[in-house]
Amino acid sequence: MSEENIHAALLVIGDEILSGRTKDKNIGYLAEYLTNIGIDLKEVRVVPDEMDDIVAAVNALRARYTYLFTTGGIGPTHDDITADAVAKALGIELYEDQRIIDLMLQRLKPGDMNESRRRMARIPAGAVHVANPVSKVPGFQIENVIVMAGVPSIMQAMLDDVAPRLTTGARMLMETIEAQGIPEGTYAAGLGEIAKAHPRTIIGSYPQFGEGRFRNQIVVRSKDAEALGAAVGAVHAMLAGLAPVTGAH
Amino acid sequence: MSEENIHAALLVIGDEILSGRTKDKNIGYLAEYLTNIGIDLKEVRVVPDEMDDIVAAVNALRARYTYLFTTGGIGPTHDDITADAVAKALGIELYEDQRIIDLMLQRLKPGDMNESRRRMARIPAGAVHVANPVSKVPGFQIENVIVMAGVPSIMQAMLDDVAPRLTTGARMLMETIEAQGIPEGTYAAGLGEIAKAHPRTIIGSYPQFGEGRFRNQIVVRSKDAEALGAAVGAVHAMLAGLAPVTGAH
Repeated sequence: MSEENIHAALLVIGDEILSGRTKDKNIGYLAEYLTNIGIDLKEVRVVPDEMDDIVAAVNALRARYTYLFTTGGIGPTHDDITADAVAKALGIELYEDQRIIDLMLQRLKPGDMNESRRRMARIPAGAVHVANPVSKVPGFQIENVIVMAGVPSIMQAMLDDVAPRLTTGARMLMETIEAQGIPEGTYAAGLGEIAKAHPRTIIGSYPQFGEGRFRNQIVVRSKDAEALGAAVGAVHAMLAGLAPVTGAH
Repeated sequence: MSEENIHAALLVIGDEILSGRTKDKNIGYLAEYLTNIGIDLKEVRVVPDEMDDIVAAVNALRARYTYLFTTGGIGPTHDDITADAVAKALGIELYEDQRIIDLMLQRLKPGDMNESRRRMARIPAGAVHVANPVSKVPGFQIENVIVMAGVPSIMQAMLDDVAPRLTTGARMLMETIEAQGIPEGTYAAGLGEIAKAHPRTIIGSYPQFGEGRFRNQIVVRSKDAEALGAAVGAVHAMLAGLAPVTGAH
């Protein structure tokens, strides 16, 4: 299925990200992945392993965007409360899914099954599995909420499973233009004019700083190839008329 | 100054993070930095370069936390609207600060000053500079909102400038315990009991996955060294009574 303007939010759940102990790798991966399949990531939130915070964020984000992805908090320990929080947010009960118990028993001796591991088999009534080829225990999709693991390799495998079932929109096309030593402050006025004159594009200017000077890139994005090309041409023409300046922003 | 429970949120402003083009480096850096100085990072949001989205997030977060840090959107181009958005959120006018113009002229020939560059000198009335030793143009603090650059090296320098002026709380202490091959599902019940019995600690279990199996770390955090030590001792005692299991979660 393909429609215009399909968007999404990501909710990262985990004290370990907020304490700085673990550096998140899922935001950048999901952002790039969704852009490539035609879903616009519009917002990310990171919240701690607290029921009220997760429930509030789930409800705010699922109401606003086509899809809400979550990462983290689906293991067997007491701090893994994502399934409970999503069920509470949606007003749906969790049940123990025997198919998940069976998947777990592919990796586990029957004597090692216990109450904590059974927690991972609880999903909301009506949820669809998101397959986990890495370690078997699946994530799930309920309504427009897609619940995935926090471990990056497992999150990435789950995303590969769920992506083909999602509605996607027109892909955002992107061109990057090197500003070739011309500072932002020199081309800012011209770039602003171009942005106004090309309303079907989104134009950004991104400085990097190194060795005492800025190196800038201008990025033009659009879902319309013709609009993109016209704006890119205008940027090149503008830059050709400007001279590099050292030391300036 | 030092008080209990000083907390903060971070608002990352930028289309380039949401498109996946730029991978954020500021969330993890700020998280670790604030933890180390006794400020608890409780929430992160990433929003696009859109006025309404930024204003809404600034107002939601500044009301809820001791401090709100923002990164990104303070350059001279049309997509740099953070100062305008913060001023709008707080209901304060921007003014052109001559001291910032003077700082810019340290790097710039007078003839290269223009309207776009002057935009970077606009800060809300009453704001205090956050010094930028890297490229001169400062960030600012207004009320409990601290506005910083998105370029990581500049953000980090700004953080070093503002941090000594912030109210900080008791530092969160942290101990990491390797689970030594014992799967989460084996120790989850015991760990949950320990978490309940040690309410002044926050206990998390963090799996990594590689070479077909999980390697888990248990992290105990507390602002009270004695409470931390007691919980860590209990975790070690629990793990000593359990045997490694391969293949299980």
